[in-house]
Amino acid sequence: MKLVRYGEKNAERPGFVDNQGAVRDLSCALADITPEALAGGRFNELAALNVNQFPVVVHPGRFGVPISGIGKLVCIGLNYRDHAREARLPVPEEPVVFLKATSALTGPDDGVMLPRGARKVDWEVELGVVIGQPARYVGQANALEHVAGYVIVNDISERAWQLERGGQWTKGKSSDSFAPVGPWLVTSEEIPEPHDLGLWLELNGQRCQTGHTGDMIFSVREIVSYVSEFMTLMPGDIVCTGTPAGVGFGMTPPRFLRAGDTMRLGIDGLGEQRQHVISLDQEI
Amino acid sequence: MKLVRYGEKNAERPGFVDNQGAVRDLSCALADITPEALAGGRFNELAALNVNQFPVVVHPGRFGVPISGIGKLVCIGLNYRDHAREARLPVPEEPVVFLKATSALTGPDDGVMLPRGARKVDWEVELGVVIGQPARYVGQANALEHVAGYVIVNDISERAWQLERGGQWTKGKSSDSFAPVGPWLVTSEEIPEPHDLGLWLELNGQRCQTGHTGDMIFSVREIVSYVSEFMTLMPGDIVCTGTPAGVGFGMTPPRFLRAGDTMRLGIDGLGEQRQHVISLDQEI
Repeated sequence: MKLVRYGEKNAERPGFVDNQGAVRDLSCALADITPEALAGGRFNELAALNVNQFPVVVHPGRFGVPISGIGKLVCIGLNYRDHAREARLPVPEEPVVFLKATSALTGPDDGVMLPRGARKVDWEVELGVVIGQPARYVGQANALEHVAGYVIVNDISERAWQLERGGQWTKGKSSDSFAPVGPWLVTSEEIPEPHDLGLWLELNGQRCQTGHTGDMIFSVREIVSYVSEFMTLMPGDIVCTGTPAGVGFGMTPPRFLRAGDTMRLGIDGLGEQRQHVISLDQEI
Repeated sequence: MKLVRYGEKNAERPGFVDNQGAVRDLSCALADITPEALAGGRFNELAALNVNQFPVVVHPGRFGVPISGIGKLVCIGLNYRDHAREARLPVPEEPVVFLKATSALTGPDDGVMLPRGARKVDWEVELGVVIGQPARYVGQANALEHVAGYVIVNDISERAWQLERGGQWTKGKSSDSFAPVGPWLVTSEEIPEPHDLGLWLELNGQRCQTGHTGDMIFSVREIVSYVSEFMTLMPGDIVCTGTPAGVGFGMTPPRFLRAGDTMRLGIDGLGEQRQHVISLDQEI
């Protein structure tokens, strides 16, 4: 299923995208798309029902983050060789793990805001793995059983704050609107092979990132298993699996986001995001 | 008010500690102690009521984390000069910020679990600042208006995972049970001066940490203001303000936690925590 949450911010309703591309409302079956609903396997039951019993939403309008109540955003750094090279950092021997604040979450087509004083805001298209069952000391062989599905994440990053402001990457990764997620949570049965997906990002119509999830250094199985040794991954958590080459700070000269820019990004089977970049003063 | 959540894990009830030290139940007035309740100023209203209308809980049993639904745990590293010195790290020029996974949260007297393969698990008594109103680009002068109250946090850390496993501190800070919080959320009116508090930690009855919040490098006002430039602090978020000297990895030779150890820690006016250390195999 392609699960969505549609409508105004903080008033989204649950739905799904049918085979004709129409959004259908799920409210009669489900209050919201939550960690509990993912853990309870509610979507397997729903998938078995006749789609026609769910009304078509003629004007779905805005899409929100397709899961409500996300507990943590775990990110893997430098997980594509070509990106480690452009960042002039060594290929990691084991996954680099960091957290992004959940207050950074925003819908897939909402504006990305340049925070006050930000000078080096950059993009990163990433495959996001949505956890369905608690994962704690999970072996690689069983890791995908703990995955509910996949999403697109744009891991927006302020490079100066990430790298030049004292120690940890947190400051450059956590600003409001720095984690667009969606449009769809595509459940696992539609993505049997998460390492056979193209992913790409365009800035103002010009292609910047062209990658393939088969080029990850650490696979989804390895990442879920590895992270589960350090913390319990909970239903609704998203694990972002790193970005391929083509980010702004790898360019010569570097190119960072400016107000008025537009990003478009996508992953095979997971849809597309489109974000306008706005400076904080433009935010209403 | 000294707010508590008492009872079995995931079934805690809201309460408060009265002037005689008795726990009184708040369920009739409030479903739970949540970010929304903090933001709505519900506790100012409750404080104005007659305490006798809330029944005394004769056997409160276990205490849980005193806030339900915490969105993020923001931590400040190296915020006491003596701790930076024992860590052999330079005194930071601006606050070092990192995040701890919310899945690490646990009650103040619950067991602290040694994860599989952990060899260097360490303690850190810290003053936790609980946010009451959203804080975004908040000036230092107004910063405390965004604070609901204060808690004790033990920022448990696996030093090898924090420092020797590739890049970021996240892996060493986020294991389950690595964030005991409580026993009380003491609302701000009881702590007019957060920089006049002693804080201490004992291991097996022996004093290890003896500090004073007046020795922080960056004050609570500075920290709330500073972090609010990088991310919006939301009601219920906890900002941990760093630990004074006396942690295990600063000792000669270093001393790390072993199964069977007991920690006791406290902060003036905020109560005490007591944790037994258990290896994962002992966990039921």
